[in-house]
Formats: sequence, C-alpha cells, structure tokens
Amino acid sequence: MHIDEIETPAVLIDLDRVEANLARAQAYADAHALPLRPHVKTHKLPEMALKQMALGAIGITCQKIGEAEAMADGGLSDIFLPYNILGAAKLDRLAALNARVTLSVTADSAETVAGYAARFDADAPLRVLVECDTGAARCGVQTPEEAVALARRIAEAPGLEFLGLMTYPPRGGVAAADAWLKAAKTALEEAGLAPQVISSGGTPDLMHAAEGRVTTEYRPGTYIYGDRMQVAWGHGTLEDCALTVKATVVSRPTPDRAVLDTGSKALAADPVPAPFAGHGHILEYPEAILAGLSEEHGVVDLAACAARPGIGETVRVIPNHACVVSNLFDRVYLIRGDRVEREAEITSRGKLR
Amino acid sequence: MHIDEIETPAVLIDLDRVEANLARAQAYADAHALPLRPHVKTHKLPEMALKQMALGAIGITCQKIGEAEAMADGGLSDIFLPYNILGAAKLDRLAALNARVTLSVTADSAETVAGYAARFDADAPLRVLVECDTGAARCGVQTPEEAVALARRIAEAPGLEFLGLMTYPPRGGVAAADAWLKAAKTALEEAGLAPQVISSGGTPDLMHAAEGRVTTEYRPGTYIYGDRMQVAWGHGTLEDCALTVKATVVSRPTPDRAVLDTGSKALAADPVPAPFAGHGHILEYPEAILAGLSEEHGVVDLAACAARPGIGETVRVIPNHACVVSNLFDRVYLIRGDRVEREAEITSRGKLR
Repeated sequence: MHIDEIETPAVLIDLDRVEANLARAQAYADAHALPLRPHVKTHKLPEMALKQMALGAIGITCQKIGEAEAMADGGLSDIFLPYNILGAAKLDRLAALNARVTLSVTADSAETVAGYAARFDADAPLRVLVECDTGAARCGVQTPEEAVALARRIAEAPGLEFLGLMTYPPRGGVAAADAWLKAAKTALEEAGLAPQVISSGGTPDLMHAAEGRVTTEYRPGTYIYGDRMQVAWGHGTLEDCALTVKATVVSRPTPDRAVLDTGSKALAADPVPAPFAGHGHILEYPEAILAGLSEEHGVVDLAACAARPGIGETVRVIPNHACVVSNLFDRVYLIRGDRVEREAEITSRGKLR
Repeated sequence: MHIDEIETPAVLIDLDRVEANLARAQAYADAHALPLRPHVKTHKLPEMALKQMALGAIGITCQKIGEAEAMADGGLSDIFLPYNILGAAKLDRLAALNARVTLSVTADSAETVAGYAARFDADAPLRVLVECDTGAARCGVQTPEEAVALARRIAEAPGLEFLGLMTYPPRGGVAAADAWLKAAKTALEEAGLAPQVISSGGTPDLMHAAEGRVTTEYRPGTYIYGDRMQVAWGHGTLEDCALTVKATVVSRPTPDRAVLDTGSKALAADPVPAPFAGHGHILEYPEAILAGLSEEHGVVDLAACAARPGIGETVRVIPNHACVVSNLFDRVYLIRGDRVEREAEITSRGKLR
C-alpha cells in the first residue's frame, strides 16, 4: 500500500529513520561501552523493543506494570520498572511478572521498600534500585546518605536484592548527576553495599551520556523516533524524526488559514521549546504554524507560506512530543519511503497501571 | 465496592453530580424552549448520551464518524456531525451511518459539498448545515453571503438537503454570533432558503445561550462533568465537577513535594486559565499545586499545605480539561458518594476517524 492510501488521522513510523536513529545511538553506546536499556514509552510496541534488543540493548525500561506485562507478552525478557510500586494488587502483579522475566524496580522511600519486603521472599527475590534525585526534582532520595540508608534496608530484607542506583537527571545535568552518583557510589562501597548497576537516562543527553562514566547503563526513550522537543533540546534534526501524523486539510476558511483533522486528540497539547512554535512541523509547508489545537481541529497559520494547501490535501506533521502521540492511537503504520510495510497494534497504549 | 478499593490511576464519575449538572442545564433549556443537542466528546459513553436524551435532549453531537458509529451501536438514533467529511472511505461510512440513524453534517466549502453531492442521492439524501465562523477563527464560511452561496449549492444537489446553519462561537461571543446568524438567516430567507436549524454550542455560554434567540438548538459538551477550565470561564463550581482522577502518592521526596502516579498520560497537558494554576485540583489538599507533569509523574508543591499526604495515600484530582481525560482511559468507574455502581467501557475513546 502507498502511504497516500492511508486514511487520516494516522501515525506513520518511518522504519529507515528508526533504524538509523537506533544504529547511531547504539554505535555511540558501543564506542563508549555504555549499555543501553531503552525506555519503551515512546513506541509502546514490542517489535520495536525487540529491534532495540537485536542491536545490542541489554534490556528495556517500562514505567507501569501494565506496559511491562504487554512487553513480556511480546517476548521481552529483561525489564526495568523505575517506579515506586505500591499497594497489594500491584505488588501481586509485580510478583507474577518477576516469575516471568528478569525484573528490577526502584524505591525512594522506606514505605516502598517495606511493601516490597512484605510481598517478596528469598525463593524469588525482587531486585531493587534506589531512585536518586540528582536535580530533576521529581522522585528520588535527596542525598547520597539517604541512598545508603535505603540501600541498607533493601539489602537487609530477605526477599529483596539491592541492585544499585537509578536517576532521571535534569536535562543538561549529566555532569551534576554523575558527581552525585559518584559520591553515592563511594558511600555505598564504604558501607559494603557496592552497587552493581548505576542507571541514568534521557534522550537529550544521550550522545554525552558516557562522559561521566559512573553509569553502567543508560535509558533513552524518544531517540528512536525523535520529535520537535528533542530537536529543540539539541538531539537530532527534523530530518531524523521518524514519527509523523498524517492529516487532511478539511477547511480553508480564509487565505491565511487551513484547518487539519488533527487536534489535541491526535497531536496532544504538549508545548514545544524555542526556537520552535506551535503544535507541530508540517513537512510539506515548513513555514506554516500549527497555531491552535482544539480536540478535533488543528488551526494552521499560512501567512508565511508561498504555496498553500487545498481542501482534501493531506500533509504529515512532526509532533512536539512523539511519546504522547503513541498513547493516543491504537495502531501505527510502519512505512519505508512511501510504502506501508504493515500496521502494528500499540499493545502498551493506555496502560495506566 | 467502596471507592477506596479502586486501583489507581482511575477515572471516577460522580453520578449524582452528573445528574444535577444535566438537570440544571435541561431546566434552563426547557425554561427558554431551547433544545439541547449535547456533544458526547466529554463522556464518550452511550449510556451518558441516553441519559441526556431521557432528560429531553433532541439528539447528540459527535465530531468523528467513529464516535458516531459507536454511539449508534449504543442505541443513539439522532446524530449531528459538525465536521467537513472528506474522501471516499469516510463518505462511504457516512452513507452507511445515514442509513442507520437520523444524521446531519456540516460543510464550509464547495469542495466538501461536491464530495457529499457525488456520494449521496435523492433516495437517501444527506442533511447538511453550513458551518459559519462567527468569530472563533476555526472552520466556517466568513460572511452571511458565503453562507447563502453554499446553502444554494447544497439545496441544488439532488442527494443533499440544506438543513441550516451551525457555529461554534467564540467564548463569551454569543451576542456577536447571534448577530451574525440573524443576518445570515435573513439573507437565506430572502434567497428562498430559510434554515430549519440554527445550531450553536459551547459550555461556557450555556446558561446565556437563549438570550439571542436566533438559535434553534444548542450543543454543550463539558457541562455534564465540568472541569477547572469551565469553572475558570465562569461555568459551574469545583463542587459541581463530576469527573475526578484517583491517584496515589508514590513519593514524598521532600517536605514540600509529593509525586502522584498520574502524569500527562492520565491528566493530559492542557493548561488552565487564571485564577487557577497547575494541572489539577486535589480535593483533599486544595492548597496544593500540581505544578509539573511528566508522562507518569505528577509533581505536587505542598508548600502552602498545613496537612500533607503520606506515601501510599490516595487523592482525587479535578483535571483542567475533562474531555481529554475521557480519551486517555479505556474505562471509568461510575460512583454515587463513596460507592461504585459499576464500571463502564469508554466505547468512543480514541475514535480519531
């Protein structure tokens, strides 16, 4: 099938670009002996995760148990869940998953560790990393001393194994994060709790991830597709972006205005950093500004465009944030050039638990 | 089941509030003899649409054919699709739907009308309204004269019936929209094309919708649930909001910070107008600010809170925009007070085409 035959709105994934993006990152990782553990949030597709594994990834990263279950169903066997898993029902699912795959999770509090410790036993222990807040101000222990104290709680629980440290560093904060992690590593070693794994992540700093060398693995997500946000932050170019949303021009109410059938229900409302503006980059009309989104309408300002689209014409849009688009569609079209190879169901879409 | 037993993240719909919100709007509509044709985008649930019909609505509004098909499957029989439907595949589905239910659509261009005219015939004509841009700067003809010209094209096509005018007015622009529509109505009458229907919509102006009296029906959407955006715009109060997202506090990394298991994948990233800030209102901690969302984390600033939540505690969040939340979850919990009546599948979720 030719991509012109695809009904809109639709998500198109350019496999040649995917493979180039993955190969570029894996080559960097290989050159610096820094194993990758890609985050599947961007694609939510087991077949993409298997592609990442085939290139050399050591495992994958998921954020919710439901995502991990779908990935296990899809044949993935080494999964890191960097999240505080709380509550009896989720801990039961975690135990079931732990019996199926090589699993690890995180904790940043005594409460989370206590939940793990009560549910797991030495016959099938759970591997736990301590999440560290190295400046991103999300989850994580605040100091290396807290990391040691929590690592000790984990190590002392019969059903748990202390595996190491995990952080999601602030963008551009690889050096600061590395300094934090080095201090924590030293403190852990002095306490007899040497970490096996020190895990960091984030696509924006992927191509600098090996500079500090304290990390033992890196978790990039968006690098597989790329998007305007990543390009604005310095990772890749618009020409590398593999995910586009195909849209139809449904209205041309004024000479300067076009309306697409892709609103926030297709493109999401995530804003983009400078130098970009608007809600997406229209490949065929790069000067156009996708100025406003309501749920089912994308309003395009054509004032800067020499050529302008007609009603019924289709265009392709690079979204601001690829990952959230993958969570809005049930299926994607995998393409090469202008041919559709096949459709794929986004099996980890909407896995909120 | 008690709501405390619901796993998070989850969407809870308070049926008592739903019924009060619907009754209040229907009472206003009845008092002013202004029929309602609710937009289902907010709930995406046939059973809610049937509830709206039982109270007196004259039909429903959908934005995509897939939504309308799901609503027809759910027993709805009078559906307005205020959208330019383009392309052979969608027109075939439109024809199939036209054979199942009382259907109407819009057009704002000769191209859209030509597509309808080529697909439909006098045996099963399609009813078409002209979409008018009365100031919202989205779709729609720009002048009453253009409305007349397009109405004539529709009326002259053997397979089409000209039904009237439709607008989505700018917020607070009911009076301006009414003036526009009155001029168009007069011009149509003079051309022998008197409109049977003049349709307007939007929850923010719902309780003023009858003031102009040129409209023959009104299409509110969000009024059924309410959200922070509507409250900020003057419709309803936080106490009227029927949709909440139940979340768990998964981390308390600092005294002033909590992290919820609801990020943009559960709450969406839509911003809120003043006087509100942040990404949602936490019922149990009204002084808290849900300051930052990543996909799976909601970071809460507790600095203004006297009482503060513990790890594992659950809270309920009124989102900025209820409609987009309904598009992120596969199911909702229908509750009364603290009891779950049942779960419901959001059958129109993700219907992008």
